[in-house]
Amino acid sequence: MQELNPPQRLLLGPGPSNVPYRVLRAMSTPLVGHLDPKFMEVMDEVCQMLRQVFQTDNRLTFPVSGTGSAGMEAAFVNLLEPGDTVIIGVCGVFGTRMVDVAQRCGAEVITVEAPWGQPVDLERMVEAHKAHPEAKLCALVHAETSTGVLQPLRELGEYLRDTDTLLLVDAVTSLGGVELKVDRWGIDVCYSGTQKCLNVPPGLAPITFGPRAVEVVQKRKTKVQSWYLDLTMLMKYWGEERLYHHTAPVSMIYGLREGLRIVLEEGLPQRVARHAAAARELRQGLRELGFSFYAAEGHRLAPLTSTYPPEHVAVEEVRRRLLEEYDIEVGGGLGPVAGKIWRIGLMGINACVQKVAVLLRALRDFV
Amino acid sequence: MQELNPPQRLLLGPGPSNVPYRVLRAMSTPLVGHLDPKFMEVMDEVCQMLRQVFQTDNRLTFPVSGTGSAGMEAAFVNLLEPGDTVIIGVCGVFGTRMVDVAQRCGAEVITVEAPWGQPVDLERMVEAHKAHPEAKLCALVHAETSTGVLQPLRELGEYLRDTDTLLLVDAVTSLGGVELKVDRWGIDVCYSGTQKCLNVPPGLAPITFGPRAVEVVQKRKTKVQSWYLDLTMLMKYWGEERLYHHTAPVSMIYGLREGLRIVLEEGLPQRVARHAAAARELRQGLRELGFSFYAAEGHRLAPLTSTYPPEHVAVEEVRRRLLEEYDIEVGGGLGPVAGKIWRIGLMGINACVQKVAVLLRALRDFV
Repeated sequence: MQELNPPQRLLLGPGPSNVPYRVLRAMSTPLVGHLDPKFMEVMDEVCQMLRQVFQTDNRLTFPVSGTGSAGMEAAFVNLLEPGDTVIIGVCGVFGTRMVDVAQRCGAEVITVEAPWGQPVDLERMVEAHKAHPEAKLCALVHAETSTGVLQPLRELGEYLRDTDTLLLVDAVTSLGGVELKVDRWGIDVCYSGTQKCLNVPPGLAPITFGPRAVEVVQKRKTKVQSWYLDLTMLMKYWGEERLYHHTAPVSMIYGLREGLRIVLEEGLPQRVARHAAAARELRQGLRELGFSFYAAEGHRLAPLTSTYPPEHVAVEEVRRRLLEEYDIEVGGGLGPVAGKIWRIGLMGINACVQKVAVLLRALRDFV
Repeated sequence: MQELNPPQRLLLGPGPSNVPYRVLRAMSTPLVGHLDPKFMEVMDEVCQMLRQVFQTDNRLTFPVSGTGSAGMEAAFVNLLEPGDTVIIGVCGVFGTRMVDVAQRCGAEVITVEAPWGQPVDLERMVEAHKAHPEAKLCALVHAETSTGVLQPLRELGEYLRDTDTLLLVDAVTSLGGVELKVDRWGIDVCYSGTQKCLNVPPGLAPITFGPRAVEVVQKRKTKVQSWYLDLTMLMKYWGEERLYHHTAPVSMIYGLREGLRIVLEEGLPQRVARHAAAARELRQGLRELGFSFYAAEGHRLAPLTSTYPPEHVAVEEVRRRLLEEYDIEVGGGLGPVAGKIWRIGLMGINACVQKVAVLLRALRDFV
């Protein structure tokens, strides 16, 4: 078996994004044990920085030992018990995935659908809640990675605050790249992934549970169906007791620590503005090349642009050639737009004019 | 927030073990995407090497995107449906954990217990099976990390081969350090962790499913309760279809690839012999210092020695001082032997006379 020798790609797909050398170097730091007092310090630092990035005071904020989808599963399995009602907004793959995960918890799922490329109408979420006030939670995907749509959240958070229903938000593709204020917006549970705007390799799912959500978990009548993701035990490892649950992925947590440090050195408002500026630069260039956009105007997600190539471009063939001949990865479409759109990610360090220029130059050879 | 600067520990606990620089360097390789054809090659290489290390031809052999406990959960949730009967041998923390995981799947659990420090009696497992021939699986922990006991398996595998019951084995602390022949011994499902004898950071759980186990999964009447660990979808990503399921933890898989390369360069028989020799050296030295052993003679696990310090040694205080003053981590006891024993790991690169010498020298200051 030969030495590992992968190509050097410019990762402009829906994630993973390119990882700064500082993060890779942190991941290659020799390990300490997962119960070492020095590792406990690292854990505390990571939780503290995650709170800043999520803009929350939630004590229970930590990285789940799995990718973003494990974060989704952790959110649902801990909150739901068989027979509970949940209301889920669906306008793409990740809302659909939420429905599947919730159903596997034995929940009664009410969906509020919107056409792909559009956000879910919050008034319809409120109506659904009025018809099902017993719902334990309302769930939405803040940044629908399959369509490039940014979902408004605030009005729903304001409405749910005065009810007994929790607001659960998927922020996998938004955290660190788009404005997201967990506490201010009334979000009770929010999870993300490391491999998007945080520029850390995939493998961890930052998650935060507010006081109302913790209360729901503590009042459960049944055991959480997943041992691995059981918050009642995980909170004793990440909290003050430091009780062993499972061996934490030490090197990934080293990487996340460095990734968060970089995010906070820049500052969240600056980082969000940079993602917005890079997206503007990209869209201007794409328009000039004859591309059009898939996500509804006014709801386009800065870190991920969904776009139709001009008609004469062989969508999948050119995508393959960008990878093979230019070492540039862009994402393909999923579901109803498979083979029809590209999803172009400008996440974290890739949200800059230089990376946009590299991509646009390559595209000029095909349009 | 300061730069990451953890101490350099000699990790002689129950895992994580120290990681060779080659593995750390592989983990710091710039990433490609999880659907990149070049990453598919890496996936295939990792699966192929895992088959060699598990000593199996099982096509369905891959790393689960979580730590060893996620491997345990993946094994049980995919095989079990509510109402199924399982027989589990219990003689320590990890057998107990299996019971918990199986019960969360809605299974009827029959336990065959042995005192901590002893292996489970295989004849009693066979008797339990004769009383419950409907059992879907029998489960055992090959290397009980909480007690340092090596569990015999072969006679049970031979017996179950002619029944409709599967043999499920936890090999978290044995894979790559102790003889383990999945196919020859009739093991249908086997999982491990990366952070023990493979010397890769924690974060992945290698797993293998034999043809009988795959058939059980394919004949399920209900959906797997975990979306994240659902084999019916995972096998389409790790198999020929390459269907996206969740974003693979690319850097961890780079690290595992390098760790497996190192294991196979040495050769499994040589590696197993080296672990045995290092354990002999350690035990000889411990005996001379007045230590005695917790695991039953004849059933002691080479990669992990459970030992009672001499009576005048303050067990937990000296363990803390070994860490703080000598940068050496050894593990403490769990459950009934908390505060009474140490668990000393000699795993992978740490299974050598040099590391034993460093530890024994430090111990001489306390006995």
